[in-house]
Amino acid sequence: MSLTFTSAIQPTIGHEIMERLHLLAQYTEQDGMMTRTYLTPAHRGAAGQIAAWMRDAGMTVRRDAVGNVIGRYEGHNADASVLMTGSHFDTVRNGGIYDGLLGILLPISCIANWHKQGLRFPFPIEVAAFSEEEGVRFKAPMLGSRAIAGTFQQSVLDHVDELGITMRDAMKAADFNPLQISAAAAPRDSIAAFVEVHIEQGPVLLNENLALGVVTAIAGATRYMLELEGIAGHAGTVPMHMRHDAAMAAAEFALFVEQRCSHTPELVGTIGQWTVPNGATNVIPGRVVLSLDVRAGDDAQRLSATADITTELERICTRRGVRSTLKKTYETSSAVCADWLQQGWHASLERNGCTMRSLPSGAGHDAMAIASVAPIAMLFVRCGNGGISHNPAETMAVEDATLASDVFMDFVEHFDALNKNTV
Amino acid sequence: MSLTFTSAIQPTIGHEIMERLHLLAQYTEQDGMMTRTYLTPAHRGAAGQIAAWMRDAGMTVRRDAVGNVIGRYEGHNADASVLMTGSHFDTVRNGGIYDGLLGILLPISCIANWHKQGLRFPFPIEVAAFSEEEGVRFKAPMLGSRAIAGTFQQSVLDHVDELGITMRDAMKAADFNPLQISAAAAPRDSIAAFVEVHIEQGPVLLNENLALGVVTAIAGATRYMLELEGIAGHAGTVPMHMRHDAAMAAAEFALFVEQRCSHTPELVGTIGQWTVPNGATNVIPGRVVLSLDVRAGDDAQRLSATADITTELERICTRRGVRSTLKKTYETSSAVCADWLQQGWHASLERNGCTMRSLPSGAGHDAMAIASVAPIAMLFVRCGNGGISHNPAETMAVEDATLASDVFMDFVEHFDALNKNTV
Repeated sequence: MSLTFTSAIQPTIGHEIMERLHLLAQYTEQDGMMTRTYLTPAHRGAAGQIAAWMRDAGMTVRRDAVGNVIGRYEGHNADASVLMTGSHFDTVRNGGIYDGLLGILLPISCIANWHKQGLRFPFPIEVAAFSEEEGVRFKAPMLGSRAIAGTFQQSVLDHVDELGITMRDAMKAADFNPLQISAAAAPRDSIAAFVEVHIEQGPVLLNENLALGVVTAIAGATRYMLELEGIAGHAGTVPMHMRHDAAMAAAEFALFVEQRCSHTPELVGTIGQWTVPNGATNVIPGRVVLSLDVRAGDDAQRLSATADITTELERICTRRGVRSTLKKTYETSSAVCADWLQQGWHASLERNGCTMRSLPSGAGHDAMAIASVAPIAMLFVRCGNGGISHNPAETMAVEDATLASDVFMDFVEHFDALNKNTV
Repeated sequence: MSLTFTSAIQPTIGHEIMERLHLLAQYTEQDGMMTRTYLTPAHRGAAGQIAAWMRDAGMTVRRDAVGNVIGRYEGHNADASVLMTGSHFDTVRNGGIYDGLLGILLPISCIANWHKQGLRFPFPIEVAAFSEEEGVRFKAPMLGSRAIAGTFQQSVLDHVDELGITMRDAMKAADFNPLQISAAAAPRDSIAAFVEVHIEQGPVLLNENLALGVVTAIAGATRYMLELEGIAGHAGTVPMHMRHDAAMAAAEFALFVEQRCSHTPELVGTIGQWTVPNGATNVIPGRVVLSLDVRAGDDAQRLSATADITTELERICTRRGVRSTLKKTYETSSAVCADWLQQGWHASLERNGCTMRSLPSGAGHDAMAIASVAPIAMLFVRCGNGGISHNPAETMAVEDATLASDVFMDFVEHFDALNKNTV
């Protein structure tokens, strides 16, 4: 793959973003790893650094009660509704340095660019650095974006981390006031649109040799835990036709999931956990525990797949004399990206000489939470290394960061909230 | 299932055997469980009780250097080669009370019966209570029968138990002399035949409503550990056709094993261990670890199956872009039961009004070790409870114990070693 340096306006913007991504990576809980969970000293340090860069870029900065850092680049009309962009600055344990952070640092550099030129728009731009998205420390994701969407659940304050500290106490210790969370919610209709730039965290763009793609929808997901109970037996003494092998039922089920999801391009099904408890070489598995995760950008496709999968599960289990217990553990609808915003991204891609490629996001993102209060859209930037993410092997090319900045600047420069158009 | 009390000679022999099985179960390492491993106090207590019952039955008793208890019921001709029978008196942890013990206590009760009647045979009968078969304490099975077969491996003396005690030291502490083990070997041609009565440890006889069956061969086995390595990935972001899911390769492999082994009646294949290390709901499995156990009474059938299975494994892995590492961890040939002894059992079954049913033994037994020095044969007695064994739920009907005793006595009364016949 040969990458061409395409920025004409600002040849170093990608380098600046990359440099800052690496600087920010120093705010970590574990030396030699990228781990930055909610409200830890590393997390607070990163917030301070981000705020400083925002100010340098000509923004005013505020922090809300959940620790979001919000930079505002004022427009000609202070009362106009806001074009919001941003992403999260927490990470998973031993994760990558691009996930989330790109969507904060890229717009800061773009705004700095406009600020240097004295360029302002008819609308204010806000860069939201969401304090929490991954859900690592308190097992509750998207705390930052939910607070701004006004959908933060108070019950989450009672969640405890591994040391038994409640989120409420952790917030107080960090000088945030849990009673003020509702004040973090954006006033109704105050956000004209929310656009998020994010690494793809998958291999689609990489495999097609494309730097950028426009997200159609953030996939909805249904998750299950499945327990199959057959009859354990001696591996030598029970003839094949007398067996009720739970693992064989699981194998047949897994292949059905694979086959069913392969028929629809933007549907995925994954059996990530797979355990025969106390399995032994010479014992026919009597019990298997599986997880199942089904996602699609289109909710109807997902629901049709899960219906087929559960029907087939029953068929397999009846035929094999195996009992199944299927528990739905999670379900969320997809968040569809607004057509007019997608068209805006495509126009910007076209003006920058890029192929116009659409793809769904299989992973969840802050935009999903903001979707309840504003139209959303996302721009994906290609990952290297086979598309790996949530892993130290996560990479991104500096050329792609520059190209994404150019496209982002073009998008903003053509944005027209009033006419729901990009002119 | 209705069971009929069929013994005419000795209506209480089954009850005596059952009573003694329960008495012997009191020699256990763990209250409320049947656990009796090699050279523990429980094991020594059981040996003493068995020796006492042997003496009561008119036998002389000797103990050899590995702790086998051997009762000899002298024949008319003390120099004639021996008809040996027996089984083991150790157990697995939390096992059943019939496994092994039936094959010791049944012949003792039968001999007691002959002894009362003053009946002797042209040949001596020896009941071998093998001290170790399960391999629990020192991870080496069939120590007792191997010592008698002259195939005891000296290296096993260095094995340590969970407390770090070597087998050598455990033997010395129990007053056995490890230097004398070779003296335990039976002189060449001294055993005319070895016949073992054992519970089936499987569901075949139970499902066919038969009390007894004649073993054709003790299955040979090949065991493998298999590691499949694909590419881990995000469950939401990697499209189905771009995946290299190690668990899906495992599922396809498992179903092939099942299908391949189902085509041949006495072949079995089991994937007992099945693990996705660190599996998570939202991660495509990058690695799976499996065990594979293939057994057949016929070695050619087993080898043909393992050849097909390994070929198919390669095909699956090539197609899916998954790497496989297959390690053979164990392989043993089958031990075929002597035709003339099988015919003897069948004749005895017929004379007792039983259906003549042959079946292989999928589990290993002491007879397997003795097969290297004498012709062997086995009589299986039906298990209750779905055929479960190595489990506290292991059961056997008193009526079946009586019927097995009648058949055993008939077999011995018709045994003619010289003509390799039962007359």
